Amino acid sequence: MGPHPAVADVRRAVRQSLGDLPPGALVLVACSGGADSLALAAALGFAAPRMGLRAGLLTVDHRLQDGSAARAADLVRLSPTLGLDPAEALEITVGRAGGPEAAARDARYAALSAAAQRLGAATVLLGHTMNDQAETVLLRLARGSGSRSLAGMPEISGIYRRPLLQLSRKRTREACAALGLRPWDDPHNTDPAYTRVRVRHDVLPVLETALGPGVAEALARTARLCRDDADALDTWADSVYTASCGPDGGLAVAALEGVPAAVRRRVIRRAAVSAGASASALAAVHIDEVERLVTEWRGQKAVHLPGGVGAVRRYGTLIFAVDNLS
Amino acid sequence: MGPHPAVADVRRAVRQSLGDLPPGALVLVACSGGADSLALAAALGFAAPRMGLRAGLLTVDHRLQDGSAARAADLVRLSPTLGLDPAEALEITVGRAGGPEAAARDARYAALSAAAQRLGAATVLLGHTMNDQAETVLLRLARGSGSRSLAGMPEISGIYRRPLLQLSRKRTREACAALGLRPWDDPHNTDPAYTRVRVRHDVLPVLETALGPGVAEALARTARLCRDDADALDTWADSVYTASCGPDGGLAVAALEGVPAAVRRRVIRRAAVSAGASASALAAVHIDEVERLVTEWRGQKAVHLPGGVGAVRRYGTLIFAVDNLS
Repeated sequence: MGPHPAVADVRRAVRQSLGDLPPGALVLVACSGGADSLALAAALGFAAPRMGLRAGLLTVDHRLQDGSAARAADLVRLSPTLGLDPAEALEITVGRAGGPEAAARDARYAALSAAAQRLGAATVLLGHTMNDQAETVLLRLARGSGSRSLAGMPEISGIYRRPLLQLSRKRTREACAALGLRPWDDPHNTDPAYTRVRVRHDVLPVLETALGPGVAEALARTARLCRDDADALDTWADSVYTASCGPDGGLAVAALEGVPAAVRRRVIRRAAVSAGASASALAAVHIDEVERLVTEWRGQKAVHLPGGVGAVRRYGTLIFAVDNLS
Repeated sequence: MGPHPAVADVRRAVRQSLGDLPPGALVLVACSGGADSLALAAALGFAAPRMGLRAGLLTVDHRLQDGSAARAADLVRLSPTLGLDPAEALEITVGRAGGPEAAARDARYAALSAAAQRLGAATVLLGHTMNDQAETVLLRLARGSGSRSLAGMPEISGIYRRPLLQLSRKRTREACAALGLRPWDDPHNTDPAYTRVRVRHDVLPVLETALGPGVAEALARTARLCRDDADALDTWADSVYTASCGPDGGLAVAALEGVPAAVRRRVIRRAAVSAGASASALAAVHIDEVERLVTEWRGQKAVHLPGGVGAVRRYGTLIFAVDNLS
């Protein structure tokens, strides 16, 4: 008798994600003890030795809730049973920069990256599922940005991999139950103070009712297609940027006139960020205004961009430079 | 004293939409009597003579509700007051093909196009607003398709133009009130049997509550950016298609290997549709399977596509042909 179908699904996802690693490589799983990352940890412990890989576990103790240290210690103790060794609890201190969610995320990833480097890991697996991806796409939609933003979370990002982006949260919960593993339910996951929690508990169910079942799958599929679209356009923009960029970082206006708007806007954004503009603060309205120096030229003044960078057009070149007026 | 700000907004949108038309051109507005198209009709009647254009009105009587003929006649009678002449009511018969919403839409556009041609109109204006666009993006999201689908409704599509895609439904209602025009509220617009009505009344308010105000604007902005992205990728795919397509409609595999997935998939889709595959039934899973003939070639058999078209790989060429097996 084979494993429970949900267990088989998670194991298959892990195997597919790790197929390119060399023998003996160390794979770590970042595990909170929640159903998603616990199912992932169990699947990694099972699959890794059968693939000639080593497997270990990292759990982050955010020290924001009572009992978090005990939970981390429990996970570390459970790890050898799951086939995961080394296993470490990483204590972190969460600051406040950018809001509580962003601060916790930044501190968590810093600790995971440092531990991975120290242990010589080839990759760190994250337990994000199709449902997390769907929530991410909805959160990004509300920002009103394009394909890159709607692309959601990538399957591979630096040392991190997300093997479960095609599986539902329901499936990981079934896998834990089938294995007799009891996941921890983070109370933050039901706290409506968090935007993501409101999307999960309020928005997605209403979307399913209005549009029919399968909305999470559809959003995850949208993310994949948008990622491909954004990758292709970045490739195109890279080549235009390289061809149009002078030694001083200026862009030849003629090269920008002959390409589609989606490419031109990406090239402008890249040149602005290279000159020191703030990538996170640079909005569509800023790019619009710089674009008009190309497409609607009538002798406009300098365009001021966030991060103290100005853009001007001089003799057929767009020049991005430190903005003396800001 | 100038016009009410909402009236000024609608007039400005109409002027911006019509700036490229030659003097004396006839512009028609498709008007249901609802707030959006009624505000649009009034703005057209005001702006057209000041731009050297002629303006008229078309209203479609779907003959599905009691009193629809009387409402259409009322609109025709009101038209000269608004500066719109000619004005015509177009009676249509709605079939059932593709469901009631699709059948009514097809019959409506057929009647509008025929009348526009008969009257020699340069363009027909449609009253879709930012809110309609936001609803369209959410409806498309649920399909799980990429940038082209998320691009929503275009500002210009054949003879049709949508000047109000940047304005909210609230704004058109304010414009009607300021002009003393009483819009007709179509009971279909509140009938939860329609998916679009559920999106409007159930989904968007919940999204606004969860994500904060401005969701409709953000969705409309997403649509614009996705449209630009899709246009650019179609341009790229066109050039790859032209370069890789042989005289028999086959595609050179080598040309498809060297381009990003987003471009390759568009080229495959285009070749399949050219060979007779059904554009509406061709889903991502079908394109996936044909793509694997390029990216994961191990001697697969023919891929069967909806519309009775098969795709096979032979001697470095993807061949699309009538599928004898289906």
